[in-house]
Amino acid sequence: MKKLVVLILLLIGQQVVASEVSEHEKKPKNVILMIGDGMGPSVMKAYRMYKDNGESNVENKTEFDHYLIGSVNTNPNDRDGNITDSAASATAYATGIKTYNGAISVDINQKRLETVLEIAKKHGKSTGLVATSEINHATPAAFATHTDSRRNKLEIANQFYDNQINNQPVTDVILGGGLDFFARQDRNLVSAFQSKGYQFVSNKTQLEKVKSDSKKLLGLFAPVAMAKKWDRDENTPSLSLMTDKAIDVLSRNPKGFFLMVEGSQIDWAGHGNDIVSVLSEMEDFEAAVKTAMDFARKDKNTLVIVTADHATGGLSLGLKADGKAYYQWGVELLKTFKYTPFKIIELAKHSGNLAEELKKASQIKLTADEITSLNKVDLTDDRTVYYVLNQLISNKTYTGWTTSGHTAVDVNLYAFGPGSNQLAGHRDNTEIGQFIMSLISTKGE
Amino acid sequence: MKKLVVLILLLIGQQVVASEVSEHEKKPKNVILMIGDGMGPSVMKAYRMYKDNGESNVENKTEFDHYLIGSVNTNPNDRDGNITDSAASATAYATGIKTYNGAISVDINQKRLETVLEIAKKHGKSTGLVATSEINHATPAAFATHTDSRRNKLEIANQFYDNQINNQPVTDVILGGGLDFFARQDRNLVSAFQSKGYQFVSNKTQLEKVKSDSKKLLGLFAPVAMAKKWDRDENTPSLSLMTDKAIDVLSRNPKGFFLMVEGSQIDWAGHGNDIVSVLSEMEDFEAAVKTAMDFARKDKNTLVIVTADHATGGLSLGLKADGKAYYQWGVELLKTFKYTPFKIIELAKHSGNLAEELKKASQIKLTADEITSLNKVDLTDDRTVYYVLNQLISNKTYTGWTTSGHTAVDVNLYAFGPGSNQLAGHRDNTEIGQFIMSLISTKGE
Repeated sequence: MKKLVVLILLLIGQQVVASEVSEHEKKPKNVILMIGDGMGPSVMKAYRMYKDNGESNVENKTEFDHYLIGSVNTNPNDRDGNITDSAASATAYATGIKTYNGAISVDINQKRLETVLEIAKKHGKSTGLVATSEINHATPAAFATHTDSRRNKLEIANQFYDNQINNQPVTDVILGGGLDFFARQDRNLVSAFQSKGYQFVSNKTQLEKVKSDSKKLLGLFAPVAMAKKWDRDENTPSLSLMTDKAIDVLSRNPKGFFLMVEGSQIDWAGHGNDIVSVLSEMEDFEAAVKTAMDFARKDKNTLVIVTADHATGGLSLGLKADGKAYYQWGVELLKTFKYTPFKIIELAKHSGNLAEELKKASQIKLTADEITSLNKVDLTDDRTVYYVLNQLISNKTYTGWTTSGHTAVDVNLYAFGPGSNQLAGHRDNTEIGQFIMSLISTKGE
Repeated sequence: MKKLVVLILLLIGQQVVASEVSEHEKKPKNVILMIGDGMGPSVMKAYRMYKDNGESNVENKTEFDHYLIGSVNTNPNDRDGNITDSAASATAYATGIKTYNGAISVDINQKRLETVLEIAKKHGKSTGLVATSEINHATPAAFATHTDSRRNKLEIANQFYDNQINNQPVTDVILGGGLDFFARQDRNLVSAFQSKGYQFVSNKTQLEKVKSDSKKLLGLFAPVAMAKKWDRDENTPSLSLMTDKAIDVLSRNPKGFFLMVEGSQIDWAGHGNDIVSVLSEMEDFEAAVKTAMDFARKDKNTLVIVTADHATGGLSLGLKADGKAYYQWGVELLKTFKYTPFKIIELAKHSGNLAEELKKASQIKLTADEITSLNKVDLTDDRTVYYVLNQLISNKTYTGWTTSGHTAVDVNLYAFGPGSNQLAGHRDNTEIGQFIMSLISTKGE
């Protein structure tokens, strides 16, 4: 009889342990937030169709698809508009508070709002920011700095250094573009960071050699923005490599870390109605997401949240052209592009033949009229060349756009790791920020 | 000691019961599938913004938002296009098989595919189809009939009666538009249904009076399509009332039921780039979803799945107009519409003043130029009047469109009830069909 009781108690004990583990799982030690800037629902579908190998009628899943748990409202608190910009949405994710378009972690009264990254630092966690834009661009800025306008780019760069806790800048690992904003004549922030013990790197090889016992790291890989993924030279790291190195360094802290990774230029491609660059930047971002998910799966104590700040361009896969509504999106042509319109234009500036460069970059077929009109474009007028090229590619692939700005549609929400199930469903972007804050503000273990 | 063992065993017993209940919950007795035709992600957001009461910066949730669990791939198996039509997508939901655009539950070789509704009937369950289009339109057709083209509308109407199991038409409750296809000179299907024991109703009052012990019901409330929700007269039932009555009748079967409810004309509004009618039809569909969810919550043995077959129109909330990208969607103006462009045009045909009728229907402000150009339109040219009106409303509200056809973007997936958690995540539309089939093919209780 005693043995039976012991056995039964053991069984119950196991269940208690199991339930404690699941309770414990709700508080991850590490949080990685990944923001695909401008990554609206049509971008997710475009990228899946682009990656699909065509072997089955059911599309292959992307890295994102495995983790879909809901969607996110992104509207700002702005009397001039109900469609958000990146600054207001990043502030919502960073602070849990709605603000006006352009605000960098200040509220509608321009009062400073504490960010999840600052709170993580206060609790002894390590902190990191990774982007492919200049690192002082709106999205990363909202996690480490505070200013009334995203346009204050020098002020933001200064605050990356000046915003300190315990005499140390709040961000331990900073990787992205923006060297021109940091190594300036009036102020050399790079030297300042080095004097605070930061290792400084500026190319891929240097980044690869960074040892994981480096506690503080500043990597600036371009004067302003990094090149698009498909156009990068061998000196420029991928977003995935930057993410990997950031995790490598940050995860040495036994108290855990907070890391924000941005796929910055999906949005820029959307603003340019440039579907080729959308796909290039999505490939970069997806690989970074895989890197983070691989770490989280192994680590078992890391929550990864992947979402977007808004949609851009009014992208749709389907177009009415010449009076006909096409039930076909031209993904096969898009699969033939080796690099983006940016590199095509750069090459055309040397060769003087835009049509020829477009044909070299892809398997696009051009009519005599199209060749004539492409070669009429003034190659010194960057804006017009880019516009004409993207309009041609969009028309040939039945890709639709309604704006050069943002649109209001909800963005997708993906998550994996302890606590992810608590986020499932439809959420406001401030809820995501508040949730991360609730995890960071309490001890992980 | 014995008491302790008994107590422990009781505790364990409760847990076993709990786990059995959760096992049981995986097989609901009833399945309600609700399809918002053309209800893409931008429609969900537009409708939420339209319904939001503005009291908080965080938007009020719609009835849909509470049940969001994932998204759905809708591409067809069609060599001419990778964007689906309603017939191919409805066939995927009805049979679990991908087919070509236009196919009504036949495969790419035009071979008949058994539907979830037919299987439900074979297993002794009751079956129903509810729509606001003519009931022989593509989506409902794919659940109860089989033909190589959705255009075979008379053939489809005939099959609603001729497709029988045990000498009875496969669908017990049929509610929607389409009287002209059923009560014909060459064949009176209404009388035929009546001879099989169907009660026939043709207006709202008659439908309201239907007793729940009526086992078979045919309700046809319009010659072809029913009017848009905001334009309906008092003789025309709402989609919610039709859904309520269908559930009332079908749920008397102790073996359970399968019901498909379609919000048919969200899609048609999208084809017309008519944002006002999109909102009208979403209001109708949301109320029907609430009716189904209310039943499911009370019944506890019903799975409700809500999704769409595809997106329509390339709708985006955000527009570049006159060289400016607006970060503002004009929802406040849309909130002032009392009825849709269809009724505005109808009234203008009597009054002869289109601009005046538009102003009567809403709080839109028109410039002198706009009034002049509206009143220049030939009111006998329905197509052009509808186009001009919708283009004006879209421009005034910064509503963008890229096509009069469909687009490829994933649609949202909502579910509630036993088994719903098994559907969570990103799915193919055939997976949804296969999942329903797996539930219907086995005994619920």
